[in-house]
Formats: sequence, C-alpha cells, structure tokens
Amino acid sequence: MEAEIIAVGTELLLGDILNTNAQFLARQLADLGITVLHQHVVGDNATRLEELVRAAKARSELLVFSGGLGPTADDLTKETVARCYRDTLRFDQEEMDKITAFFAKSGRTTPANNEKQAMVPVRGKKLPNRNGTAPGAWFEDEGRYAVLLPGPPHELIPLWKEQVLPLLQPLCSGVLHSLTLKVTGPGESHLEERVGHLFQSANPTAAIYAKTTECHIRITARAATPAGAEEMCRAKAQEFYDILGDCVYGEDDATLESVTVAALQQAGLSLTTAESCTGGLVARRVTDVPGASEVFGFGFVTYANEAKQQLLGVPGEVLKRHGALSPQTAAWMAAGARRVSGAGLSLALTGLAGPGGGTPEKPVGLVYLAAACRDTIFIRKLGLGGRSRETVRLRAAQNALDLARRLALGLPLPDDTQTVAAARLAEEMR
Amino acid sequence: MEAEIIAVGTELLLGDILNTNAQFLARQLADLGITVLHQHVVGDNATRLEELVRAAKARSELLVFSGGLGPTADDLTKETVARCYRDTLRFDQEEMDKITAFFAKSGRTTPANNEKQAMVPVRGKKLPNRNGTAPGAWFEDEGRYAVLLPGPPHELIPLWKEQVLPLLQPLCSGVLHSLTLKVTGPGESHLEERVGHLFQSANPTAAIYAKTTECHIRITARAATPAGAEEMCRAKAQEFYDILGDCVYGEDDATLESVTVAALQQAGLSLTTAESCTGGLVARRVTDVPGASEVFGFGFVTYANEAKQQLLGVPGEVLKRHGALSPQTAAWMAAGARRVSGAGLSLALTGLAGPGGGTPEKPVGLVYLAAACRDTIFIRKLGLGGRSRETVRLRAAQNALDLARRLALGLPLPDDTQTVAAARLAEEMR
Repeated sequence: MEAEIIAVGTELLLGDILNTNAQFLARQLADLGITVLHQHVVGDNATRLEELVRAAKARSELLVFSGGLGPTADDLTKETVARCYRDTLRFDQEEMDKITAFFAKSGRTTPANNEKQAMVPVRGKKLPNRNGTAPGAWFEDEGRYAVLLPGPPHELIPLWKEQVLPLLQPLCSGVLHSLTLKVTGPGESHLEERVGHLFQSANPTAAIYAKTTECHIRITARAATPAGAEEMCRAKAQEFYDILGDCVYGEDDATLESVTVAALQQAGLSLTTAESCTGGLVARRVTDVPGASEVFGFGFVTYANEAKQQLLGVPGEVLKRHGALSPQTAAWMAAGARRVSGAGLSLALTGLAGPGGGTPEKPVGLVYLAAACRDTIFIRKLGLGGRSRETVRLRAAQNALDLARRLALGLPLPDDTQTVAAARLAEEMR
Repeated sequence: MEAEIIAVGTELLLGDILNTNAQFLARQLADLGITVLHQHVVGDNATRLEELVRAAKARSELLVFSGGLGPTADDLTKETVARCYRDTLRFDQEEMDKITAFFAKSGRTTPANNEKQAMVPVRGKKLPNRNGTAPGAWFEDEGRYAVLLPGPPHELIPLWKEQVLPLLQPLCSGVLHSLTLKVTGPGESHLEERVGHLFQSANPTAAIYAKTTECHIRITARAATPAGAEEMCRAKAQEFYDILGDCVYGEDDATLESVTVAALQQAGLSLTTAESCTGGLVARRVTDVPGASEVFGFGFVTYANEAKQQLLGVPGEVLKRHGALSPQTAAWMAAGARRVSGAGLSLALTGLAGPGGGTPEKPVGLVYLAAACRDTIFIRKLGLGGRSRETVRLRAAQNALDLARRLALGLPLPDDTQTVAAARLAEEMR
C-alpha cells in the first residue's frame, strides 16, 4: 500500500511550529509496511487543498491528514476531503454533547462555531477524540482511504494508536511488533562497524538512531500473529545482544538513569554525586526518575576548589600539586562524597567543558570520572574534545551513569578504568 | 513573492529524522515577506520529483530544496532541477579539489562517485559549502528561481545565511530586521490578554512562541534601510516593554541563566543552591553558562532529610514539625546553604514533583522556593500542579533563577513573596 501525509496549517507554513506529526506518522506507516510517497504541508486554502487531495488520491491508496479540524471558517479540511471521497457530513449530537461538556468543565459556554466540529462523515466513520473537542474522521471510496486527525500531538497520537491502527491493520498483510534497544558506549560509526550487517534484512527491519549520548536500534517484524512478530523481534534482538552484550543497557522506554536507579536499588547500594564540570547534571538525571529518593539522598556540586576542600575534604595540597583537573582530585572527590554522605557508591566528575580555558596538556573536553564503591576507587580519563560545552557535559554525565550501572550490576568496566584501593588513597593519590 | 519548500530524502519519508530544515526555511522566508504556499517531502524518485518540480515551478516563483545532493546514483535532485529550469551542469575543478582535500584530511581517498558533487550549474550559480562536500546551487529561468541546499542543518543554515539571503534580499522589497524578547513570569494566555493587541500590526510583525517555562516574542520589521528596520523593531519592542516591564528578562540569545549570572556578577553577589525537588537542575542551568565559576562555587542537592540536616543544618525539629515540604524547611535550607558556602545569595527549593506522593494538603506540584540575601529570607509558595514531573521541576527552577535575577538587579519581587528577617529565622520559622 502507498500513502501520503498531508498536514494542514498556517503555523507550519510560517515555521511557527515543527511538524513532529509527520515524523510520527511516517514511522508508524513504515512499521505497517506502508510506503510513504510524499509528505505535504498546506494552508487553509480550499482550492489548493482540493487540488492537492485529488492528485494525491489518484496516486496513493491512503491519505493521512493532520490538523485543519478547528472550529473556525478557515478550517475546511473535513468538507473538502469528504467531497473528494464522495461523502457528505452530518451533525452528530453525541459529539456536540461532548464539546458542550468540555467547555462547561472550564465554566465557559460553547461558542456557536463549535457545531462545525460535531459534523461527522455519513458513509465514513467518526473517530472520537478523548483529549480534545475535534473528532477525527475516516473516509472510504472504492479502495481509497483518507484519515483525518486533529493537529495537537497529544490528541493525534492516542487517536492514531487506539482507533486508526485497528482500521489499518486488516488492510495490511500480517501484524507488526517493534522493539528498541538502547545502547551506550560505542558511537554510531563504531556501532555500524560491529553490527552494520544486521541492518540489511527486510523482515525484521532494524535501523539505528544516533542521539547525543547514546544510540537506539529499532527492530520491527511482521508476521501472521502478534506472538510470531514478537518472537521474530526477540530473535533479531538476540543477534545484537550477542555482539553488543552489556552495551545494550535496556529496551523501549528504559533510560540509562532509570536502569541505573533500578540496578542500585537491587544491589542495595545508595548513590551520591560530586560534580564539578557537570554542575548538577548527573544528580538531575538521577532525580528525573520517580522514586529516586530510595537510592539518592545527597549530591554535591563542587564547582570551586574551596567547595571541593570544604564539602568533600579534598586536600589542598592535592589541588595545588595536580590541579582540580586531575585523576587525583577526582579520586579524592569520590572518596569524600562517599564518606560525608554515607552512600554505598559515589560518582565524581571534574573536567573542562569549555569553550575557553584549554591548554595543550589539559585541553577542553578532558574529564576525569571517579567512583568509590566498596573498598576500591575507580578512575577513568575521558577525552570528549571537539564538541560543544553542552555535549561535553552530557557525555561526561552519561559515562558517569554507565559506570554506576556497571558497578551495581557487577559488569565488566571499560578497559581504560584505573583502580586504587580506597585504603591506599592517601599514599597513591597525593 | 510566493515560494515552496521541497525536502528530498528517504530518511524523512521513513520518519527516521525530523524535518527541522522546513521550519528554519519557513521562518526565514516569512521574515523576508515571502509567502510559503506548500511544503513537500519526496524520495529519490526521478519521475515523481520532476513531476513535483514542474507543478511547483508553475505555481510559485521560488522553490527552496533541501537534501538530495549526495554522491550516490540515487541523488538526482540537481540534474532534475537543472532540467526543469532549462539549465545544464558542468564539472567544476575547484569544487573537486575541495572534496579531495576534505577526504585527504581524514586520511581517505576520494570515492569516484564524489565527482557528481563537483557538478555545478552552467547558467546558474554554485553556492560553495564550507561545512561539507556538497555545494549548493542556484537556478534562474525567466523570473523563476530555485535554490538547492545540502540536507544537514549545520551545512544548510550557514549556507542560507551567508549566500542565499544576499541573493534573495534584492528580489524582496526592503530589508528586514528581527528581535526576540524573552519573557518569564506570565504564561501564554495571560500574556495574550495583556499584549494581544500588539500582535495585530503587519509591519513590524510580532508573534508569540510559548516554551515550557517562558515565552518568546519575535518582532520583525521591513524598511528601506537596515537602520530603519532596526529602529522600527526597537519602537515596537518598546511598546512591549511599556506593558511587560521587567518580565522581559532579555533579548535574542540571552537565556535566563546567562542574564542571572551576569546580574549577579555586576552586583558582586556569589550564588549557591540548595535543591531538593529540582535535584540539581538549578545548578546545572547556572553552570551551563560559560564562566559561571565567577559567581557559583557551591551547590547542594539535599534530596534526603538527612542531607538537609547534615549539609545545611536544617533543625530536625523543623523537619519533624512542618515536614520537608514547608516554607520553614525552605527558609532554613536557604539560610544554611548561604552560611556553609559563604555565598552572597542562596536559592533553596523543596517540593513535590510527583507523579506520586500527593495529599489534599500537599498536592503534587506544590513547591516552596526560598532565597537568603543580605539580611532577609524571601519565601514563595508555587502551585505547579496538573503538570508532568519534568514540567514541575523545570518551572520550579525557572522561578528560582528569576528570583535570583530580581534580587541581583534590585527589581520588585512577585506580590506573593513573604519575607523574614534572617536574624529572626530561629524564632519565626520553627
């Protein structure tokens, strides 16, 4: 099946908003095995809209519309599409009651023009919208289909998933299942080298999405039954796990912070943070997780040397001899944060995020990461140069969370990890 | 002048990437006074592309393309558009040398198919690309124009600004100037009520963009000279300043954190943070500003009650009597953070970000914000309910930064701000 996506709205033509609906719909259609030939954005102009709809309907079996369902006279998408699909509209009292109730809830009377939103297809279907006043619509004309969706993503997405997918699935062959693997550690090009050959297959498909600090691998399978599709996804995922191992930190909605908090909880380890260059970013990510208080109680942002000395007990002579940007300072920060907070595991970061302040010996992007856990201090040197201040900070925080995850789960640590016995800190790191 | 934006690329049709170029180009064209009639996304199919280009050229004077300039056989945008604009392509040695040098820099030899990228218009213009291997192109055919731009935004944006704008400006009447006012405090609907009437004018235009924690007002003026356009923007901006006053915290690239850091620096005040519900978010935003170390040295993330007691000296009896979520605890946190760090100004936050844990007396979204500065403690109660955990945290942090800005600049504080003399903390807040 071939499809086109048509967004209606002046805000999009003016660049006031970003067309995220197009990406959502494109991905959903791809998952269904439907080929998207075109995406369009048009304004509220009846002639141009009708011209476009007629041309698109001639080319493609399915047209998916977003927006243009508002109550004003400008909003004429529903009437236009109905005409092109040889349907008409009728007033629907049930929809009108919902609209009236919606306005009443916020103490307002319903504007007269909202009756327009209660018009639904006569031959087609109405698609009730539980998050807004405008219902969607489904039109059919001799094997050609059009679906109209409201513009706001928090209305469009649930309506698509709950009502449109069940209508489209029977028109497509088989059912689909998707799975996303979340990978941290190797960058996109490194990942391509290791698992690139796994992206070639047609069913299941696999695609890589590079994010600022991690990569996502999305696997989609089509089969006769849901269980069959899930099993195919699982088998494909296993091929990735076989190569990437514990670089895959989780699946689907898991985040590195949620997985790390869960791992700490299971290991009975509490966490503390001592941050210089990341300035609170690690603590912020940990506390993004609802219920983080079960493992996280104390965080230190020791941006100044005095803070490192006063709050964490980093010796003045260590700072003087090696500077704040040194493995020694990182190790003392980690040890101090653990001692002061009483946490089982501490993470410490000191680095130069830039843009200024770099020297040939200590360039922008140089970050030392340390963790104190049980009787050992673990130290890593990260070279994150050639990136923006923000990216250096984000990647440093990502490495810190991943170190905590590995320590909590007892996984191997990166090869470059240096270790010092906590008892020998004063001798080895001074 | 009327225009259409055409993006070429399978990644967009599959939903693998978001079409941010369309928004950038739409906004730039709107600023030039050019009306965008359509936006399109098409794949690398020669027939469909040519059909689209011919139809769009017949409708609109200007077509702006992004993507499709790669080296592979699939990338045929340049050839197709050249044909539609009655132009041809020639090999350009200068571009080829740049491509060869680009590959040599990373120790690679240039793939043979890259010669395709060195093809440039014969009658039109090449648009050299200093951030990638694919040059852009400009075609003209009897008052109809087409501009081809590379897909990656970090190539497209500078190429547009440096080379396309100077070609388009003479085709538009007058010159343009834009100015963005950054507003914190009132929400979008409240702002619409106060300044909605200022959005009506046609030149300068003004538009509002609502962000999660603030609003931006973008003013664009067209005039015969740059100075004239700037003056018109400034006059319009003054109308907003007259109504909104110090709710406008800055212009253009200013961020609330950069303005706050600058204000603290000018006031000779150093800052410390004591964060519970925001978990490091305020510290993180402050340290996003390059050079923040001049005013920021110490930050505390006191998520647990023990941390509030141990690091900040919040009395156990205050926590017991009023709970962590109370104006008393916030006040003691602010006082303690200031005392321990020696900073001139402290910000403290304690609240319930949710999603769980709310009660009728202390619902999700209730946040107490306190600041200690000079001899006074300032306390605000924020009701941020009905929002996600993330939004509650972001808005709480925004209010905290704005309180610091106001204190540093000596601006009026919100009406609901309660004050306690620091010397009377033990008596009034126990």
